Amino acid sequence: MVTDFKLVIMKQIKYTILVSIFFSFIFMSCETSIKEKQDTNAITTELDPLPSWNEVTSKSNIIAYVSGVTNSESENFIPIKDLIATFDNDGNLWSEQPAYFQLFFVIDKIKSMAETHPEWKTEQPFKAVLENDMAELGKQGQRGLLQLVMTTHAGNTTEEFKSEIQEWVKTAKHPTKNVTYDKLVFQPMLELLQYLRDNDFKTYVVSGGGVDFMRAFVTEIYGIPEEQIIGSRIKTEFDYNNGNPVIRRLPGLDFIDDKEGKPLNIQKIIGKKPVFSSGNSDGDLQMMQWTASNKHKSFMLYVHHTDSIREWAYDRDSHIGRLDKGLDQALNDGWTVIDMKNDWKVIYPSR
Amino acid sequence: MVTDFKLVIMKQIKYTILVSIFFSFIFMSCETSIKEKQDTNAITTELDPLPSWNEVTSKSNIIAYVSGVTNSESENFIPIKDLIATFDNDGNLWSEQPAYFQLFFVIDKIKSMAETHPEWKTEQPFKAVLENDMAELGKQGQRGLLQLVMTTHAGNTTEEFKSEIQEWVKTAKHPTKNVTYDKLVFQPMLELLQYLRDNDFKTYVVSGGGVDFMRAFVTEIYGIPEEQIIGSRIKTEFDYNNGNPVIRRLPGLDFIDDKEGKPLNIQKIIGKKPVFSSGNSDGDLQMMQWTASNKHKSFMLYVHHTDSIREWAYDRDSHIGRLDKGLDQALNDGWTVIDMKNDWKVIYPSR
Repeated sequence: MVTDFKLVIMKQIKYTILVSIFFSFIFMSCETSIKEKQDTNAITTELDPLPSWNEVTSKSNIIAYVSGVTNSESENFIPIKDLIATFDNDGNLWSEQPAYFQLFFVIDKIKSMAETHPEWKTEQPFKAVLENDMAELGKQGQRGLLQLVMTTHAGNTTEEFKSEIQEWVKTAKHPTKNVTYDKLVFQPMLELLQYLRDNDFKTYVVSGGGVDFMRAFVTEIYGIPEEQIIGSRIKTEFDYNNGNPVIRRLPGLDFIDDKEGKPLNIQKIIGKKPVFSSGNSDGDLQMMQWTASNKHKSFMLYVHHTDSIREWAYDRDSHIGRLDKGLDQALNDGWTVIDMKNDWKVIYPSR
Repeated sequence: MVTDFKLVIMKQIKYTILVSIFFSFIFMSCETSIKEKQDTNAITTELDPLPSWNEVTSKSNIIAYVSGVTNSESENFIPIKDLIATFDNDGNLWSEQPAYFQLFFVIDKIKSMAETHPEWKTEQPFKAVLENDMAELGKQGQRGLLQLVMTTHAGNTTEEFKSEIQEWVKTAKHPTKNVTYDKLVFQPMLELLQYLRDNDFKTYVVSGGGVDFMRAFVTEIYGIPEEQIIGSRIKTEFDYNNGNPVIRRLPGLDFIDDKEGKPLNIQKIIGKKPVFSSGNSDGDLQMMQWTASNKHKSFMLYVHHTDSIREWAYDRDSHIGRLDKGLDQALNDGWTVIDMKNDWKVIYPSR
């Protein structure tokens, strides 16, 4: 029943940028197994830095680029301080179908909060969530979804929110794959992150998803520290709180890290252009364009979701992760496009 | 005449937070000599990590703290990923009298722009700047200063602004010390930054000054990369610009990195609490309080300007860098306070 409810979501709600930025994936915290895998990869690196990739153009392009810009004898050599690599998250480092997984946190939290909010039984958009009434929730539109997001993401402190997410991901399962979310990260991309770091790149996540949501549990999975995770944010306020200072999360948008927001946030936070960018949708296009304008030789990488069996197949007409203008520019400008079905030996970690 | 004009500023204008955030120090680009000095310090570290400090309590406190939290056998041991150190800039890493030096950039740029703005001869607040009329500029108040800041800091691209600052710092001199600004960085603080990095701390600047202004030239002087410099910002917009994308600087405040803004920005950008914070004014107090609430053992360091001969002496009544509530809390809570006159053998680098 719950699963049906979640599935219907993708058919009925047009996720707008304003709201969708708050929905991203959830991983279970099986960090140890993934870390072990990364360590194994590090050892494998000397033989093949990207063992889960077939011997395809995307792989050889990546290796040729990294080898070139890290070779001090090369005309394309880039100083270490400028080796900035930025990765979109949803649909790029993990799956994003049938909906951004941050939405499943929203739904689960609304249901768990309902006990102390009896008025929600008759009040939209909460009533629709509690009754699994997607037709009605669809009618609530963007405003209704934003209200749900603010209800579940604001009103607590940053510490409390972090604990809450960490508790939630321990039990959350993907609605159709019915596995914990750590199974749905892209193994080939974990290898790519590690390969870049082994070559002195500084790897960043630059996602439309909520930054505090991601930071609560992806740092060890990706091997990326909190300060290298950039995302959308809600407003906050500082309260000295009689000597026990807290930062409170307020119900208002502070910054939407999508489309133009990505290069703007990269400039605000990193202060220099990436040389390597990876994404999977039109929401990443401006970040790609910004990267392509680097005075250093740069590399733009699109993940194209072509595998309807092992993952999902979608691009120009998808309501999530639409890849249309980005695909045109990638093909036109010679950016590297990963054909997920043919380029990757495996999609997800084997355990 | 110009010098008189600049000196009068400090007496006549009450720099409000809103405006003051855009004024910070300028260094000349004698980066090589400072880098050499840093290298020398790195070698010296094994003997004395802070050679420009007298054998005083502030020094022994710092060394005891760093030794403790980096000792894996200690109960106070902190994992490397959490060794975040945040430093205010104006008055903390370099001098800030008789005015934040970013103001001198504003004045110089207004004068250089005046040729193409004949209307400024009769239009305030520009007229006051061009005529060195501080009495009139004072009357223009906060609004007038903000207008001057936006006129000089917006309307160009991030790249253009960076080049402009870099050109400017090559010739700018301090109005009373009459030396290039690289002479006015605090040698003992450069040693402290290096000492912390030698012990795996990640050092950040968290300043009320303009972030793009600082990033244009302090990275090599401090040994801190762009992505670890946090400051105030004006609004920006992305323009694809027919394939030559730029980020344009707009005449509006985006974020003021002062007082409550410091812990808020630290949470937004770094995503975790510092364990070490250093500042010199009440504008740093909230950052100190946030740091003091770290679950790890933390260290709060105030620079107290007590040296009227070698630098400047000011605290509770100063119109710049006022240290009043912060000094009370430091004394009350046992934070470390540097008595600049007695604790530091030298203030500035010897060359």
